[in-house]
Amino acid sequence: MSLHDLLHKFQVSEKVEAETKDYVFNHTMIRVKDLQQSIQFYANVLGFIPVYEQVFEDAAFTIVYMVRRALTEIPVDDAARKEWVLGQSGVLELTYNHGTEQDPAFHYHNGNSDPRGFGHLCISVPDVVKECQRFERLGVTFQKKLAEGRMNYIAFIKDPDDYWIEILQPTPLSA
Amino acid sequence: MSLHDLLHKFQVSEKVEAETKDYVFNHTMIRVKDLQQSIQFYANVLGFIPVYEQVFEDAAFTIVYMVRRALTEIPVDDAARKEWVLGQSGVLELTYNHGTEQDPAFHYHNGNSDPRGFGHLCISVPDVVKECQRFERLGVTFQKKLAEGRMNYIAFIKDPDDYWIEILQPTPLSA
Repeated sequence: MSLHDLLHKFQVSEKVEAETKDYVFNHTMIRVKDLQQSIQFYANVLGFIPVYEQVFEDAAFTIVYMVRRALTEIPVDDAARKEWVLGQSGVLELTYNHGTEQDPAFHYHNGNSDPRGFGHLCISVPDVVKECQRFERLGVTFQKKLAEGRMNYIAFIKDPDDYWIEILQPTPLSA
Repeated sequence: MSLHDLLHKFQVSEKVEAETKDYVFNHTMIRVKDLQQSIQFYANVLGFIPVYEQVFEDAAFTIVYMVRRALTEIPVDDAARKEWVLGQSGVLELTYNHGTEQDPAFHYHNGNSDPRGFGHLCISVPDVVKECQRFERLGVTFQKKLAEGRMNYIAFIKDPDDYWIEILQPTPLSA
């Protein structure tokens, strides 16, 4: 469907663009049981860099912002870096409630069984076959491998809390 | 904490940057009960443009990708637009299971009551006071107004499914 027809079908006004032009879709927040484990996953598997940490001692939780940017693009100065990350798009916020990692029975809900809601994060990659091989080498857990199910062009991996992360490539897979 | 210290604290290797440099944090997916209502909210309140719709008739669901970009930046050609959006960052994917809007009792779970998990999306704006006034004028539902609670520099609004959307500005509020 053409872009014009999509806008018309969903009754989206083009004038809203002016009113919201300086808005930024800054971040998605998920709660994680073990902060260290989650940061290592998002960093070492998916290339997110932890750029800001704030500890709320009274309320016993910590937040960490992670962003996929070259290290050279990230401001070194602490105050400048906080302001910078809040103006970026594609940020991941991890919220860690202190002590949850010490309870073996504790776990968060990934939204994909009842009660459902949130579905997944998605990382797009230039070559989904190649990157899935990399994930296999790294010992990443898969929810769905490429060859499984009907959609053989996407995979789902799982983060340490079992949140699903879709892996796809923008272009069709080569035959 | 300095960026160097943060990386050290969380044992993040700088070499991962090379392996993952072409990855893109493409989208966050949430399920919505009423597709039309959700698209109008994300478009008219927050400036997201619906750029791609795919209907899966057999499995009875539809996905729509929405992205905050100027209309002039969005490819007109359908195939080019799909490929383009899958390479962008800051995309929102809405998943709509056909017919859910016809059941008054049906609702999704926003992750902020038990069982918890997903927390919120966040939109950053240049002037949080001014934009919260705009949301009031538009009749948007607030989870937390600026003046409520201890954090008087952030607000939370709610989308039609009661998912929370944090509203903040990168800079400190003027006194």
